[in-house]
Amino acid sequence: MRSTVGWQLEGPSSTLRRTPLERRDLRPDDLAVRVDYCGVCHSDLHAISARGDGDGDGGRPLVPGHEFTGVVTETGPAVTGFTVGDRVAVGNIVDSCGECAMCRAGQENFCHAFPTLTYDGVDRHDGSVTLGGYSREYVVRDRFAYHLPAGLDPAAAAPLLCAGITVWEPLRALGAGPGTRVAVAGLGGLGHLAVRFAVALGAETWVVSRSPDKADDARRLGARGLVVATDPEQLAAARDRFDVVIDTISAPHDLGPYLRLVAVDGTLSHLGHLGPVTVETMDLLVGRKRLSSAGSGGRPATAAMLDFCAEHGITADIEPLPSARVNEALDRLRRNDVRYRFVLDLSDLD
Amino acid sequence: MRSTVGWQLEGPSSTLRRTPLERRDLRPDDLAVRVDYCGVCHSDLHAISARGDGDGDGGRPLVPGHEFTGVVTETGPAVTGFTVGDRVAVGNIVDSCGECAMCRAGQENFCHAFPTLTYDGVDRHDGSVTLGGYSREYVVRDRFAYHLPAGLDPAAAAPLLCAGITVWEPLRALGAGPGTRVAVAGLGGLGHLAVRFAVALGAETWVVSRSPDKADDARRLGARGLVVATDPEQLAAARDRFDVVIDTISAPHDLGPYLRLVAVDGTLSHLGHLGPVTVETMDLLVGRKRLSSAGSGGRPATAAMLDFCAEHGITADIEPLPSARVNEALDRLRRNDVRYRFVLDLSDLD
Repeated sequence: MRSTVGWQLEGPSSTLRRTPLERRDLRPDDLAVRVDYCGVCHSDLHAISARGDGDGDGGRPLVPGHEFTGVVTETGPAVTGFTVGDRVAVGNIVDSCGECAMCRAGQENFCHAFPTLTYDGVDRHDGSVTLGGYSREYVVRDRFAYHLPAGLDPAAAAPLLCAGITVWEPLRALGAGPGTRVAVAGLGGLGHLAVRFAVALGAETWVVSRSPDKADDARRLGARGLVVATDPEQLAAARDRFDVVIDTISAPHDLGPYLRLVAVDGTLSHLGHLGPVTVETMDLLVGRKRLSSAGSGGRPATAAMLDFCAEHGITADIEPLPSARVNEALDRLRRNDVRYRFVLDLSDLD
Repeated sequence: MRSTVGWQLEGPSSTLRRTPLERRDLRPDDLAVRVDYCGVCHSDLHAISARGDGDGDGGRPLVPGHEFTGVVTETGPAVTGFTVGDRVAVGNIVDSCGECAMCRAGQENFCHAFPTLTYDGVDRHDGSVTLGGYSREYVVRDRFAYHLPAGLDPAAAAPLLCAGITVWEPLRALGAGPGTRVAVAGLGGLGHLAVRFAVALGAETWVVSRSPDKADDARRLGARGLVVATDPEQLAAARDRFDVVIDTISAPHDLGPYLRLVAVDGTLSHLGHLGPVTVETMDLLVGRKRLSSAGSGGRPATAAMLDFCAEHGITADIEPLPSARVNEALDRLRRNDVRYRFVLDLSDLD
């Protein structure tokens, strides 16, 4: 086994502690990656609070982190696509069955046998629990590492691997581009990237937010403007207006007001929340509107997104922090006090 | 006022009685229509049972019927598109505001000011309660009557005006045609027309039903075959397979098994039931699947559907009954004992 160090959840608390970790010895198709930067995702909060609530997995180690960038430090003997020193990026899945229809179609994120998650997953070969990117080293199957294009800042690029791909796939699948109108509900980690992508794809892009003070930011990101989600007049004026609404709001909320913004035959893609959702049939029926969801991405889309980001100079707006301040980052994320993504600098673990 | 006769709900029961009715004198853009045939729709059952449950409208007269065909017997002075003797068809809406974005887009069924329903609606001009097509005469604004194309049997064409258009609009909006795979869940009044349309549009069409004994009928209607909805193996084999699933099941049911039949980026259009629907986010997320709904249709789509039916020789499979047997038809429809639509022959009201 390989030794490294990372930030692991300590007992029945919500505090991460610096902990020595083991990584597997390289399999033939593995890369060892020195993790330099790892984004702090809402999913990390969910995973931590689920442990705190006693979800029955209290004995499993939890090291969060599933959007990171770094440098290849060693390669297995069968690896041909990467060499030592390559800049790479890893997202929230690190393996899949490779054989089902979804994997064959390049949608490994929807693998019928369930993809192996980057942390708190179970390795398909040795049954070990995966430990995430809040650590100085990660060992990953080569197919699930991506070359980080030149020109992309590795810290600001890290959030592309989860926040970015999660909004990229639905925007592409729903045809966002010239001649379409896109609204992004919620201007946070996912939302601000959705705005940048939609604008760069050529769509007329708006933000919908309860925070009118985000209007300047919305315009800075390229949006035409901001619709205040608590203003009935603005909502009425925007009724039936958007071909695509990307809903990135992480808290449970009524989808009705957002569906009413969707144009005839348009789609609301609801990304920020898991669990059951309830909609009034009439909110879908009137306008033949569509409700969808999405999450993470397949290998081809992830690679295409990174190329697009390099071409258009897109990365996340981040607040970088030494990894020793991870608990502060999590606390502030809980209060939505970040514009727009914390990224941990893991070099302080050396 | 004009005098006619129809089948009206009698007091707090679920029995319709032959009752003298009044129709308005013709406005300049009105047609008087001798109603010859009227389909019996599930909505009629809902409306009757809502009255029986004391929905607070107990004082309002209820004459059901919103898919009918007949002959023009008189025209208002401003009518130019119809003359006495024309064969016409009328569906479930008979007026709309004409000014909102939906009306201007030819989606009067989604009128922001709510369309005037053919029965149990409120006339936009005189405030009277609309009385439906279970009667010998109807007076309708010319814009909401459609020429019944030559070659279509007027009895078998009547269900096109509600059951037909309700499945036609989503099939068209979702691109059913050559190269697409369509599944129709539920083989009843809506479902059997959805199969005929999807087949005629060129889609590979299947039926999903809990009744294996409908397999022969499914094939007779042009479907490739039937997936038994209670057979886990058949459902598993059909997973992620259909670009479009048209769900016509009228009873509340779990959408999960039907969403799992939808292909990546495909859509389940849920038509048979009103009220809130709950779905697991994961059933949408895995495959970026879309949930939609639809109902009724706008004027351009209704006219286009009737032309398509004439071209392809499509009408409903009906069981015609003299209108005096309307209560028997309703009872049997409650038990799903019809293949596939009752149509009342109203000539017995003369």
